[in-house]
Amino acid sequence: MNIQEIIAKKRDKQELSKDEINFFITQYTNNNIADYQASALIMAIYLNGMSKEETVNLTTAMANSGDILDLSEIGPVVDKHSTGGVGDKVTLILAPIIASLGVPVAKMSGRGLGYTGGTIDKLESIPGYKINISEEEFIQNVKKIGISLIGQTKNLAPADKKIYALRDATSTTESIPLIASSIMSKKIAAGANKIVLDVTYGSGAFMKTKEKAKELADEMIEIGNLAGRETVAVITPMEEPLGRNVGNTLEVIEAVEALKGNIAEDVKNVVLELGSNMLKLAGKGDNLEENKCKMMENIANGKALEKFKELVANQGGDVSYIENTNKFERAKYILPVILSKVANNVKNQETGIKTNENITEDLIDGTVKELKAEEVGKLSVFLGGGRIKKEDKIDSSVGIVLNKKIGDKIEKGDIVAYIHSNDEEKGKEAVQRLKEIYVIE
Amino acid sequence: MNIQEIIAKKRDKQELSKDEINFFITQYTNNNIADYQASALIMAIYLNGMSKEETVNLTTAMANSGDILDLSEIGPVVDKHSTGGVGDKVTLILAPIIASLGVPVAKMSGRGLGYTGGTIDKLESIPGYKINISEEEFIQNVKKIGISLIGQTKNLAPADKKIYALRDATSTTESIPLIASSIMSKKIAAGANKIVLDVTYGSGAFMKTKEKAKELADEMIEIGNLAGRETVAVITPMEEPLGRNVGNTLEVIEAVEALKGNIAEDVKNVVLELGSNMLKLAGKGDNLEENKCKMMENIANGKALEKFKELVANQGGDVSYIENTNKFERAKYILPVILSKVANNVKNQETGIKTNENITEDLIDGTVKELKAEEVGKLSVFLGGGRIKKEDKIDSSVGIVLNKKIGDKIEKGDIVAYIHSNDEEKGKEAVQRLKEIYVIE
Repeated sequence: MNIQEIIAKKRDKQELSKDEINFFITQYTNNNIADYQASALIMAIYLNGMSKEETVNLTTAMANSGDILDLSEIGPVVDKHSTGGVGDKVTLILAPIIASLGVPVAKMSGRGLGYTGGTIDKLESIPGYKINISEEEFIQNVKKIGISLIGQTKNLAPADKKIYALRDATSTTESIPLIASSIMSKKIAAGANKIVLDVTYGSGAFMKTKEKAKELADEMIEIGNLAGRETVAVITPMEEPLGRNVGNTLEVIEAVEALKGNIAEDVKNVVLELGSNMLKLAGKGDNLEENKCKMMENIANGKALEKFKELVANQGGDVSYIENTNKFERAKYILPVILSKVANNVKNQETGIKTNENITEDLIDGTVKELKAEEVGKLSVFLGGGRIKKEDKIDSSVGIVLNKKIGDKIEKGDIVAYIHSNDEEKGKEAVQRLKEIYVIE
Repeated sequence: MNIQEIIAKKRDKQELSKDEINFFITQYTNNNIADYQASALIMAIYLNGMSKEETVNLTTAMANSGDILDLSEIGPVVDKHSTGGVGDKVTLILAPIIASLGVPVAKMSGRGLGYTGGTIDKLESIPGYKINISEEEFIQNVKKIGISLIGQTKNLAPADKKIYALRDATSTTESIPLIASSIMSKKIAAGANKIVLDVTYGSGAFMKTKEKAKELADEMIEIGNLAGRETVAVITPMEEPLGRNVGNTLEVIEAVEALKGNIAEDVKNVVLELGSNMLKLAGKGDNLEENKCKMMENIANGKALEKFKELVANQGGDVSYIENTNKFERAKYILPVILSKVANNVKNQETGIKTNENITEDLIDGTVKELKAEEVGKLSVFLGGGRIKKEDKIDSSVGIVLNKKIGDKIEKGDIVAYIHSNDEEKGKEAVQRLKEIYVIE
């Protein structure tokens, strides 16, 4: 068996055998196959697709390429995964609710990359919160208080890491078998028995349409079930950012508010959809509506917030920040955004230069028609709240607070959002950029 | 412009602009684009194809990626290129014939790689022949005696070299736009004004069928003409090796014999087809049949052989070897091949081992039905006559002499071929392998 033959088979639209897929993943993980050979195969997979069986074999091979977490000590664990979004603080709200209802939550999360945020970055904005603890301690924490949220401890699915980096550099990300195997290999390696997937669609998601999201969801459900992990998926829109706040500290604050009952409608919907399915998978009740009620109850009676505080304390975090979110360090510049349009933007005929003298701005009213999640996410990265490259440092306090979202009415002069920035110039530029992201009709 | 966008366009079956192709080739030549990005693009080109315009732009960009030879001092130069074969000594015969008819031949040839041989390796088996001379000397030689055959002096089409190596490792060789641009970029960089192509098809060629060869030929003709180089192509079969001898010294000997008039029918056909077209392109006569007659005349009157000797002498080679080919060093073992089949090849029932006692061989008669060029070429490599990797050294004296070829009748006990080997064991194994390459009916 050699890689050229495997590439040639997929190039010619033939199905790869389990042995061939294992050979590719094992040899690529061990650097015996060159990146340029892997990328040729990946492009052939992108263009010629993969059967369900091939995708399952690819997923299993990638999961087995590194360590597999053993959570059997805890008992059955339900994991949750989202295909990514902007302003997605769902895990911070959902995990304590679920744990407060007696379902163990042992979850390893990732960092943000590109315009989407990561749960780990958000948790790190809580002073003292340790995201790097040993596997031993992680399991003990779950056994003790029923919940632990940490970063990745082990060498999970290293083959996926290598392939993911290649795909980013070779325009082969948007492929259902490749996305499905990437997500599911990590979930399987992370040790969960049951998996609830949040498959997002829209401008801020991998999948641009609901149909594509459904296709991806079906593929992942089948992979999960074939791999012996009971899997369900909910499909949620990601046209605009989720909730009101985008940015690390800002999202923690929104999550705490949500656990106090002040929860944005869109966030609530996603949390309840996912949570009710997790409870069902965990054997806590087959009726999704009843499950949702139980969840709302534990928000109302404070048990969910209590569990979140317990989590933070147990991981070394300073609970006083959760008790009083005003303690969080805020960005230096908090700039209001008021929509207006340039009424007279005439270039000087001779110099071709626009000057302030001939620019006036008219205030706008109407209804918000579009507020693209991807653009808002990029704005947060621009302010320093996200990473372009893996090595980039992030600024926890910056971000965007959205007062007005799609469907909301705007009166002339309304503050539709606030930019939180630590750099005045960047903040001003972000105000201008956000004004263009709001599409009003 | 960035490489991801370019990959994405070709992935989505869009046409790449001239600027995009130039960007790819320039940046890849300068190592600003990674091999894994180039290979993803190459696979997308393999699977989604290229328009004629894209292929022309790719060819031009690759030709311009390095030096372009300036042969204007010589005047119009006709170049010849073959898409490769086994036992292909055509250049050694054709070039002196053409030169003897007053058409300047300034040709840079390559080394052999894989199962196909290279003209330069063959020339180097003539003691003293210098294949590395300066560009200056090369041009002066052509001006003085009308012919020079050398190795590549300059950095011609370095982008093609990089892409060629990638294609070999990623199963993307058999793509018409990629083959056509690879060949034509080198021809254009090598400075010829007019180009005659020998496009081979069959088991020993890139193109397995005559139709595919025609398609490749048409593509290259169009590229050549669009690039301002008058181009014609002849399509020739490469099912079995060309001529009688395979191996470096052995092929030089066959070429000398051919120039003396002892020319195998298949070799003669290719030489005359190509040569008559070269004469036509050079303005020496539009009637191909008359051109062929002129060529045969210069074999008969000794002028072509004289020109070959002049060439050898001029490049520092020892002409006495050409005058008396018996002077060439021969391989130590020259083993006859007689076809037979194992009549009683029963394994010992207890040990499972085949022993000589229960093997007898029956001699075979019939007609040669198949003699795959690729297999014979590989056998020559096995004997040491070719290279698997670029760095491999070759043994000039080894090879195969084929007495019987497709269509020939064989009587029982006929010697169908001789294996020339410097290693007795390898020679014996080659005899057995060649017996299996001959398919008799």
